[in-house]
Amino acid sequence: MGKRIGKQSFILPSKPRIVSSASFVGRTEGEGPLGKLFDVICSDDTLGLDSWEQAESRMLESAVRLALSKIEKEPRDIDFFMGGDLLSQIISAGFAARELQSPFIGIYGACSTMAESIITTSMLTDAGFSDLAVCGASSHFSSSEREFRYPLEMGTQAPPTAQRTVTGSGAVAIASSGVRLHGLGFSHIRVTGGTIGKVCDYGITDASNMGAAMAPAAASTICANLSDNGIPPEYYDRIITGDLGSFGTEMLYELCYSKGYRIENVHDDCGVMIFAPEQKTVCGGSGCGCCSVVLSSLILPGIENGDYERVLFAATGALLSPLSSLQGESIPSISHAAVIERSEA
Amino acid sequence: MGKRIGKQSFILPSKPRIVSSASFVGRTEGEGPLGKLFDVICSDDTLGLDSWEQAESRMLESAVRLALSKIEKEPRDIDFFMGGDLLSQIISAGFAARELQSPFIGIYGACSTMAESIITTSMLTDAGFSDLAVCGASSHFSSSEREFRYPLEMGTQAPPTAQRTVTGSGAVAIASSGVRLHGLGFSHIRVTGGTIGKVCDYGITDASNMGAAMAPAAASTICANLSDNGIPPEYYDRIITGDLGSFGTEMLYELCYSKGYRIENVHDDCGVMIFAPEQKTVCGGSGCGCCSVVLSSLILPGIENGDYERVLFAATGALLSPLSSLQGESIPSISHAAVIERSEA
Repeated sequence: MGKRIGKQSFILPSKPRIVSSASFVGRTEGEGPLGKLFDVICSDDTLGLDSWEQAESRMLESAVRLALSKIEKEPRDIDFFMGGDLLSQIISAGFAARELQSPFIGIYGACSTMAESIITTSMLTDAGFSDLAVCGASSHFSSSEREFRYPLEMGTQAPPTAQRTVTGSGAVAIASSGVRLHGLGFSHIRVTGGTIGKVCDYGITDASNMGAAMAPAAASTICANLSDNGIPPEYYDRIITGDLGSFGTEMLYELCYSKGYRIENVHDDCGVMIFAPEQKTVCGGSGCGCCSVVLSSLILPGIENGDYERVLFAATGALLSPLSSLQGESIPSISHAAVIERSEA
Repeated sequence: MGKRIGKQSFILPSKPRIVSSASFVGRTEGEGPLGKLFDVICSDDTLGLDSWEQAESRMLESAVRLALSKIEKEPRDIDFFMGGDLLSQIISAGFAARELQSPFIGIYGACSTMAESIITTSMLTDAGFSDLAVCGASSHFSSSEREFRYPLEMGTQAPPTAQRTVTGSGAVAIASSGVRLHGLGFSHIRVTGGTIGKVCDYGITDASNMGAAMAPAAASTICANLSDNGIPPEYYDRIITGDLGSFGTEMLYELCYSKGYRIENVHDDCGVMIFAPEQKTVCGGSGCGCCSVVLSSLILPGIENGDYERVLFAATGALLSPLSSLQGESIPSISHAAVIERSEA
């Protein structure tokens, strides 16, 4: 059927629609440059629940419900929820799916989860296996520190390459062309293609330097997308990476340049955009929630409003675990990319 | 396009082919009733590597390579590898994908991973997004005990409801109808449909009683498949669950009966089949690897040889984490199901 382009990329002939999105973030994120764009900003990052993990799951569930409510739908109306998070055994997504009671496809792509979910859901929608589905991803500063680093009570100082895990959940509803919807969703956004990432590993072993670990994967997937499609970087209004942060972004430019592409004129990084320098998050934001809330609150509305015509959304994940780091393994990473375009129809 | 049947099920008009499978297991599994059917049985469950986790990843990588070698293919020939495992951040699959260098779609469905992977890959294949892809799932007794329970050195006694996590990796290659293949793969096996599971939670909090936690999910998905398709259990030669074990199997029969279906005459459980009673594994096997190696070594060759005409493969996963159990959460579970049929073509 000729939907594959090159070795890693594909096109979506029916151009599935992104019909709604929602974002739910913590207080620090709400105080950042994108604060006014988020749907919900919580003042207490436990949401009054017993643990950060429970709060993270509730945030993801809430983002999914909110994205659906904007198009006057409920969880029972969707064909499936596809999502994940950073925690062991993706409990944030699993417990959210228990509450939503929709069919659930759990995925793990670390911070690339949102893009992995969007490209896979879009392929399934293009093929007629879904009329309406929701993609979601979440992370939480406090649950991530517990999972990957040190107890917060230790007050460990962040090294100069560190990024702050975003407390936030984003959700995106994807519909087939034929479905009629009401409400205040998007009318002009379509997923037209994408690129499935390969795992890259440049031997980085410092779990406080995720940007360096993930930059090779971002470069690999972005260059594969450009090469598979035979297009220059400027084909896109913006190429938006997940959360390389300021240090990883510099590496990305070098790596792309070594493959023959200059992307700096069209590139933005969600990890750089979500926090202001005076917020002292060192190299910026990270976590599944980072690019999922920036996509949901800034990029998709920007496409809907005509600020961008064509965006490559390349989220990037580090596939380490606390155990693999203890065992001295390096940090493999992966990036998946979705082509998201404006259409008048 | 009418590929959805009911709320959770779907059909695959092009009937993607299962063209090859491979299984790689540990010594205890090799000494069990299915021992002669496995492709590789290792005598040392570290494979000579530094950790059980590294060994598990190597087993999964080896199973993928072996499944491909049977059809004279290599990892570079596939469109993607989709898989997962039980460990935090699915490091077995992630590190295997690093070595394979195929595009990688990481998923997490606990012990339902093999079915989740097969149905998702089959949908993507049916739709033309893949000509040849590999699904894989793995687990390892020793890495799982470390992840979920107690250090092996403690010699903790297993309670009467416990199951033994299978040390094993299974891989299944799925091809579109149009691809021409050589070698000693399967010629008569097709995936014709499936059912996407919902998360069920009956409030079980005992992490040593996975069968009871997962039986409701198996019943939900099996009954959804029968109901969505309007068929009786006898439509299938066998309905094969992942790893409910002997205790969970009894619960499954009760739950299906309460929904109007008697399945015991056509039902088998991989967790019950993989070990013999004299192996003292209490209620049987569990883990992603359990149903993936039983599928790869017993069920698929059985379909190829005409022992079965039509099988519902319903793998079942418990979506707990060590942390969620410590926080007093109950154990949500999910089951996904693939319809696998014999065809002469």
